[in-house]
Amino acid sequence: MSVTAAQGFEAAGVAAGLKSTGARDVALVVNIGPEKVAAGVFTSNRVVAAPVTWSRQVLADSRVDAVVLNSGGANAATGAEGFLDTHRTAEHVAAALQGAGREVSPGDVAVCSTGLIGVRLPMDRLLPGVDDAVAGLSPAGGPDAALAIMTTDTVPKEAVAGGEGWTVGGMAKGAGMLAPGLATMLCVITTDASLSPERADAALRAATRATFDRVDSDGCMSTNDTVLLLASGASGIVPEDGAFEAALADVCARLARGLVADAEGASHDIAVTVAHATTEEAAEAVARAITRSNLFKAAIFGNDPNWGRIISAAGTVPEEIAPFDPTALDVTVNGIQVCRASGVGEDRDLVDLSGREVRIVLDLHAGEAEATVWTNDLTHDYVHENSAYSS
Amino acid sequence: MSVTAAQGFEAAGVAAGLKSTGARDVALVVNIGPEKVAAGVFTSNRVVAAPVTWSRQVLADSRVDAVVLNSGGANAATGAEGFLDTHRTAEHVAAALQGAGREVSPGDVAVCSTGLIGVRLPMDRLLPGVDDAVAGLSPAGGPDAALAIMTTDTVPKEAVAGGEGWTVGGMAKGAGMLAPGLATMLCVITTDASLSPERADAALRAATRATFDRVDSDGCMSTNDTVLLLASGASGIVPEDGAFEAALADVCARLARGLVADAEGASHDIAVTVAHATTEEAAEAVARAITRSNLFKAAIFGNDPNWGRIISAAGTVPEEIAPFDPTALDVTVNGIQVCRASGVGEDRDLVDLSGREVRIVLDLHAGEAEATVWTNDLTHDYVHENSAYSS
Repeated sequence: MSVTAAQGFEAAGVAAGLKSTGARDVALVVNIGPEKVAAGVFTSNRVVAAPVTWSRQVLADSRVDAVVLNSGGANAATGAEGFLDTHRTAEHVAAALQGAGREVSPGDVAVCSTGLIGVRLPMDRLLPGVDDAVAGLSPAGGPDAALAIMTTDTVPKEAVAGGEGWTVGGMAKGAGMLAPGLATMLCVITTDASLSPERADAALRAATRATFDRVDSDGCMSTNDTVLLLASGASGIVPEDGAFEAALADVCARLARGLVADAEGASHDIAVTVAHATTEEAAEAVARAITRSNLFKAAIFGNDPNWGRIISAAGTVPEEIAPFDPTALDVTVNGIQVCRASGVGEDRDLVDLSGREVRIVLDLHAGEAEATVWTNDLTHDYVHENSAYSS
Repeated sequence: MSVTAAQGFEAAGVAAGLKSTGARDVALVVNIGPEKVAAGVFTSNRVVAAPVTWSRQVLADSRVDAVVLNSGGANAATGAEGFLDTHRTAEHVAAALQGAGREVSPGDVAVCSTGLIGVRLPMDRLLPGVDDAVAGLSPAGGPDAALAIMTTDTVPKEAVAGGEGWTVGGMAKGAGMLAPGLATMLCVITTDASLSPERADAALRAATRATFDRVDSDGCMSTNDTVLLLASGASGIVPEDGAFEAALADVCARLARGLVADAEGASHDIAVTVAHATTEEAAEAVARAITRSNLFKAAIFGNDPNWGRIISAAGTVPEEIAPFDPTALDVTVNGIQVCRASGVGEDRDLVDLSGREVRIVLDLHAGEAEATVWTNDLTHDYVHENSAYSS
């Protein structure tokens, strides 16, 4: 049910002809209230798509009434005309919703786009698609919306959690450019909990920092990444301190895990945990250095527990960022400690890498903090999809 | 002639059985003087192989009498025993040279190793190989030495330059882990110019910074990278200010270009030039962000001039490092300006990517500085070689 699992939301997903396949490509999520609290986090890329520029403005007053999302075109690197296209889309959504008896201002309509860069959106197809989506809005429309935002995803990603009388649910797409500070990832999360804007914002930032921000499929950062949280207050409940935060983090973690599991061309999902670091930031920096190593990722594709590539990637992190003794590193791959004190440990032939999930633990022996970053292996299919698919 | 092009040097390259193929795998370069000035630069990885630790000590007094290099084993992540193996190798070289009438101290013998990580060297084969190399030393031994340091290289890399009465020549190996702060790259350069230790050091640092340091084949940094410069003074000439520096930079540039041209599994060599940056450091940071983008590199493999991936990689560089207007970027691919003001430019179908060499120019319109970083495309063969080859 994803974005329509919580009370106070309607959604739709329709086919407007943006995708050449005829699949659904326009999604709409509407908050019917009574509250219209929202928070958002966006790509940290300086080169941003028009809808990101627009939606950041929409979020400035912490209110979003509707989100329109399209696949089949990123509307990035499209200049002033591209921004006008986004603006026109928001105005069209507001007008169509007004026509359906909903009081919505264009300035409260967030816009998300995903697909090819450097190509204008076909507005003559997108705007009629918006009309169809408004006509199709339904409290059961979540799954259609989740389908409509897919690009190279093979399955829709949805997750739901909640507490006593309130619910949080979300949908996400993205299988290619997952990276730090998010990825070509669009995600909309809704809740019927009653939240202050400050609480919504803090909860979303904390949840994304430990989940989406720690998925680094291929080190590339998109121009379009957007994660939105909409709260309707329809449950009338203000969750206890920490309860909503935990449920939101759970939804984000499951959606992020789903993105890793569906990453383009991947054959292994790899969790790199750096343990006993001096700080969480140090642990994350070392984990990220490993998840960005093409040599390491190619080795895992070959079912090779090549710990030399793990410690040499760790060694590229400057000491001022992550203090540790480079001669004291232990590496465990799927439970087998193949490297001990930066030297040969247990027999690497004992490591079973035949499953999809791989667990790497690098012990720095430097402190008490730890962090996990997820990535994928580097495969022939990754090269194929990303040399053939122009995005 | 490479390392024996200059007067005052002898070299050899022999097969000691470290490589299963029976190919040459032990090289020796001896400075017969009259001067024994040396300089070196090493990997900036904190996880370093035993021979790097050893050779850094040898270089402390700016004197190197001989360099022994082996392929077939990196002697990295081999602990205290690995360091003793390196020490023993240096002592064996010194003793064998003494047996041949040369006064050489073990503390003046640099050691370089390349090959698998986490495996001890077979000393019972390496040391007899050293004896053979000493017996085979010759003023014409440079080409054999260049062959003996190859690993996955398909061709030896040699280059020679010089001025009036003096010569500089070098050999290099490395085709896999080329990266910032060098790569599994071993390089020995010799000259018969008469150089002070300070001049040798400054010239080598300046030359490597603009050449080897700007080759970033796959973003991975080795534990073994070493570049050594040995000066014999045998020409009796002190080159004019700038003349030696220019010749050394030329040799380094040609060797670095040779490494790119022979990178594992590559089908394109890509020069990414960032122009009109505020500083050279800013230009280099942006160029490096692009050369590290797997999506960009996979696109070039597919002969796809995907400029969206170029500007989105540029946008990941923080503004405090590289100030520029993200809406004002121009991108030229092999002479065709496919992106203008961060939007669509000339027809991308005009771009011819059928050749091996690709020239990307990103114009930041922010200043007067520029830098070029070389990389390779991301190919099926890269994935294959690095999932099958355990290094």
